[in-house]
Amino acid sequence: MTDRFSSDVYARRLAAAAAAASAAGVAGLVITPGYDLRYLVGSAAQTFERLTALVVPATGAPTVVVPRLELASLKDSAILELGLSVQDWVDGDDPYELVAAALGGHARIAVTDSMPALHLLPLAERLGAVPVLATEVLRSLRMIKDPAEIDALRKAGAAIDRVHARVPEFLRPGRTEAEVAADIAEAIVAEGHSAVAFIIVGSGPHGADPHHEQSDRVLQSGDIVVVDIGGPYAPGYNSDCTRTYSLGQPRADIAEQYAVLQSAQAAAVGAVRPGVTAEQVDAAARDVLAEAGLAEYFVHRTGHGIGLSVHEEPYIVAGNALPLAEGMAFSVEPGIYFPGHWGARIEDIVIVTADGAEPVNTGPHGLTVVPV
Amino acid sequence: MTDRFSSDVYARRLAAAAAAASAAGVAGLVITPGYDLRYLVGSAAQTFERLTALVVPATGAPTVVVPRLELASLKDSAILELGLSVQDWVDGDDPYELVAAALGGHARIAVTDSMPALHLLPLAERLGAVPVLATEVLRSLRMIKDPAEIDALRKAGAAIDRVHARVPEFLRPGRTEAEVAADIAEAIVAEGHSAVAFIIVGSGPHGADPHHEQSDRVLQSGDIVVVDIGGPYAPGYNSDCTRTYSLGQPRADIAEQYAVLQSAQAAAVGAVRPGVTAEQVDAAARDVLAEAGLAEYFVHRTGHGIGLSVHEEPYIVAGNALPLAEGMAFSVEPGIYFPGHWGARIEDIVIVTADGAEPVNTGPHGLTVVPV
Repeated sequence: MTDRFSSDVYARRLAAAAAAASAAGVAGLVITPGYDLRYLVGSAAQTFERLTALVVPATGAPTVVVPRLELASLKDSAILELGLSVQDWVDGDDPYELVAAALGGHARIAVTDSMPALHLLPLAERLGAVPVLATEVLRSLRMIKDPAEIDALRKAGAAIDRVHARVPEFLRPGRTEAEVAADIAEAIVAEGHSAVAFIIVGSGPHGADPHHEQSDRVLQSGDIVVVDIGGPYAPGYNSDCTRTYSLGQPRADIAEQYAVLQSAQAAAVGAVRPGVTAEQVDAAARDVLAEAGLAEYFVHRTGHGIGLSVHEEPYIVAGNALPLAEGMAFSVEPGIYFPGHWGARIEDIVIVTADGAEPVNTGPHGLTVVPV
Repeated sequence: MTDRFSSDVYARRLAAAAAAASAAGVAGLVITPGYDLRYLVGSAAQTFERLTALVVPATGAPTVVVPRLELASLKDSAILELGLSVQDWVDGDDPYELVAAALGGHARIAVTDSMPALHLLPLAERLGAVPVLATEVLRSLRMIKDPAEIDALRKAGAAIDRVHARVPEFLRPGRTEAEVAADIAEAIVAEGHSAVAFIIVGSGPHGADPHHEQSDRVLQSGDIVVVDIGGPYAPGYNSDCTRTYSLGQPRADIAEQYAVLQSAQAAAVGAVRPGVTAEQVDAAARDVLAEAGLAEYFVHRTGHGIGLSVHEEPYIVAGNALPLAEGMAFSVEPGIYFPGHWGARIEDIVIVTADGAEPVNTGPHGLTVVPV
């Protein structure tokens, strides 16, 4: 049973979710398969066209609505151990009616972010009211990691650091990005992850596209290579770490601009502590780049929260005035991108401590020179 | 460019989608990444927390709203070749405002089935109106396959038939379901699929769970084994075929019940022709089983549409009075399930022709006896 925590963890989370729903003035939460369902009951069930939903009323006991032929999908979760009421249904039944009944006739509800329109619109129609996002209700629960979650994030971080330590041996002129990515995929699993979530190998001009994945481009001496990798680590918490490599000694101007980026990343990590806002951390990175005239080359936000999902709250972005709090976990990953030429990014996952930040990634932050 | 059809196919589909929107009385369609987006513009982009959306107004030109750092995700689609207007946005912009502008201020829209609440609820709020499901609008478009799509489904069907022809060599007492599934996964790709979508190896009592996937259960002589497999075949159309195997000669009662199932499946395929309703096809299978006293062991619908997605309309289920039409493609897959003991299912994908059904799967339908 490595895919979830013990049932008492979920019992606490369900109680906290009900309390949060009550505090938010909604009658209950309706959670279809996805990260919120995994968070609340440890279920990795998937969404299909037949409705599966956990209903957490603000007061009263939770109910799970599930198609009869997907009942088996509950067995790895904490649902049965917790003794939750399970309402199964067969084709021809109206599952939205079952959800409405589990809500005791109340209509003002919150739904999980990932609920597809396919289920959300019929549910809204049945209830006669448009739901709100459960993100708003579950935000503080999901954002503040408990000690077991922090431990999982640390292990994931150490695992991806071990992968980065092996990346230089994969990077050789003449190999394609895709070949390098295949080696990295193997290493991600070999170092203990349960799967590969994403692999970016952006070499030369591809490094200037923050969302480039990998291609048949052949690595060349002199390339700057962005390697951004991660995956889930039991029980499902993700790693996410970016380092940038240089095939041979970098040009002086590249080394200089990279050094500014490194200062920007360090400044952002240094700004992290309880009470500082998310946008202040973003500004800390941006200000350093701006001073060196590089602000326009940093085209994305500074970071994103991480946990069961790779991207979750808090987002470290201009306009987010959320004050950081102990236990939050997020990436700090400024980058500079010169379209058609090269790019670089440095990313650590950090956990907010009582008085600062604990990075879970500790590999060298400099431009790692791979001898060619 | 094997991942999509030529651009003229998508130009026709976009025009038909706009006409369907107009006929349905909605001002436009808003399509986030998923099967509808792939259908309309050949894009396999994924949904992230930043909004990517194709806006197809009932009158006027389509617009694509996309985060600037995901612009590259459009390059394999037909979007650029078709010259669609692309509105990129950066963190801090309001993408829902861009969608509203692309709709020319109209609020009554239809959204794709898979649009997550994360995007649907802010969009509904911005528009001041609750959308309807685009499924309703795109139903006839997506359900009636054009010749290129039918060709793709035939190729996918032939490929999965070749895999089933090899399954007996994988099924040996002493091997686990998971080991068999690993061999099947390799064969699915070796026979031309671009990926594995699902593999069910349900042996002995596991065959009685229609949604069992695979396990460490060791195959035994005398097992009945349900093998339900499929995957996408370029440019993305899925195979899905179930056959049932017997490790050694089956018991007489099993052979007899299986024969009834085989008659039920043949009766359902035989019932398919334009004008017959989806529920009549379901009933054709169910009636044969009922006559033999087996109705209660057939616990799911008879079939589901298939194309870019493995499960789509039309659903072959009681209550669906939709008349079949030439060009529809769906599974016909009755099963019988005896919890704790064994189960069997027979599944073909069929295409509705002018006067009947063309099965794309042609492997033997009987209980295939594997010598042990």
